[in-house]
Amino acid sequence: MGRVLCCGLGPGDPGLISVKADRAIRAAAHVAYFRKKGRAGQARAIVEGMLAPGVTEYPMEYPVTTELPFDSPGYIDALAQFYDAWADRLAGLAAGAEVVVLCEGDPFLYGSFMHLWTRLKDRVQVDVIPGIPGMAGCWNAANVPITWGDDVLSVVMGTLPEDDLVRHMATADALVVMKTGRNLPKVRRALAAAGRLDEALLVERGTMSGERVVRLAEAAEADCPYFAIVLVPGQGRRPEVAE
Amino acid sequence: MGRVLCCGLGPGDPGLISVKADRAIRAAAHVAYFRKKGRAGQARAIVEGMLAPGVTEYPMEYPVTTELPFDSPGYIDALAQFYDAWADRLAGLAAGAEVVVLCEGDPFLYGSFMHLWTRLKDRVQVDVIPGIPGMAGCWNAANVPITWGDDVLSVVMGTLPEDDLVRHMATADALVVMKTGRNLPKVRRALAAAGRLDEALLVERGTMSGERVVRLAEAAEADCPYFAIVLVPGQGRRPEVAE
Repeated sequence: MGRVLCCGLGPGDPGLISVKADRAIRAAAHVAYFRKKGRAGQARAIVEGMLAPGVTEYPMEYPVTTELPFDSPGYIDALAQFYDAWADRLAGLAAGAEVVVLCEGDPFLYGSFMHLWTRLKDRVQVDVIPGIPGMAGCWNAANVPITWGDDVLSVVMGTLPEDDLVRHMATADALVVMKTGRNLPKVRRALAAAGRLDEALLVERGTMSGERVVRLAEAAEADCPYFAIVLVPGQGRRPEVAE
Repeated sequence: MGRVLCCGLGPGDPGLISVKADRAIRAAAHVAYFRKKGRAGQARAIVEGMLAPGVTEYPMEYPVTTELPFDSPGYIDALAQFYDAWADRLAGLAAGAEVVVLCEGDPFLYGSFMHLWTRLKDRVQVDVIPGIPGMAGCWNAANVPITWGDDVLSVVMGTLPEDDLVRHMATADALVVMKTGRNLPKVRRALAAAGRLDEALLVERGTMSGERVVRLAEAAEADCPYFAIVLVPGQGRRPEVAE
């Protein structure tokens, strides 16, 4: 019987895909993935060279976003229709076949697949293979432990209001800030207000070619892609101290 | 030339080890792993059947802990000596060979390996292959997305003071609580005080045999192993709403 199988791809290096997901991707006859219109797509790029001959690919292209702000009612509505339509199409395919959906990082941690999952889970069998989160690829690329002992780790989005950012940055021991990009000046101000800017690292394309790690305090403001991640490693209980 | 290579094993299912770590583990001539004295060890159990014939194993047995509280100066000192001694031994081996160190979950996220890493990194080449964190295995086992949209995710230890727990639980959208065990009554009180108890799940042995997921409000207090994880999924921006 058919099903939808979402495979977490991990942070970008194909060698970091799990053994189980690697096998499923190589054996798949139907492979779907999100991408922006006109782009090859990051998920598809990760599996380059892995897909079986004769595979059918289903690029799920996000509605064009240049005309509308991403939080406008019009765009939100277009996106809901987009997810509805692909859920219908995948449910139809999964009635008689296994459809592999590729998802960068871990599918259940801020993954786009969740928008399909919630529409599909009561209609067809849906299974998910977890992946290494993108943020773990970033602290691995930076070669720095992110949390020690009893450290509190908080993961926050750069899209939050500045006051909220400052509050979370001041109370957590270790920090991950995602969705930086055009929010970078705000993220930088919030880290400075929380007294954490000096420890912050900016990691771009962690585990991939073009990987770059710089101190945020030294990064140019104009020089930050949307998917770069800011890390503030915890200091926690030091190595002298027990688990 | 030699090196120390730490392989993240992921949450427990051997199929969730990365392709790269899987290859390194199968090819290794020297394999080290932590375990409690008298136990087979969870890391070793995960790679059962994977090690090459003729491999040399180095079980790194934690100092006996029953006589001393884990936060007492005597135990902390014993543990520091234990890490020092193993760092010396691994540095000696790595002068002429590759030594693979196994580490459950992701090595840089609360991993015991960090205590060796900090002692080795300026003496020999040390490389780390990231892994799927144990908590990701748990939300996968619970079959629930942990974060949506702009949700704040906080990871806290059950060992923290109750007031701190309440504060973090009240301000984060999604929560992971580790080191539950004997802290479970406190964790439960803190979640209730923060108004989050009804949403909380207790996940034990996520992705492994014996996996168990229950609502925390319904779990017996006596019935919680140390490594069970409590999850409170975020509600975030719902599927109708854009990324």
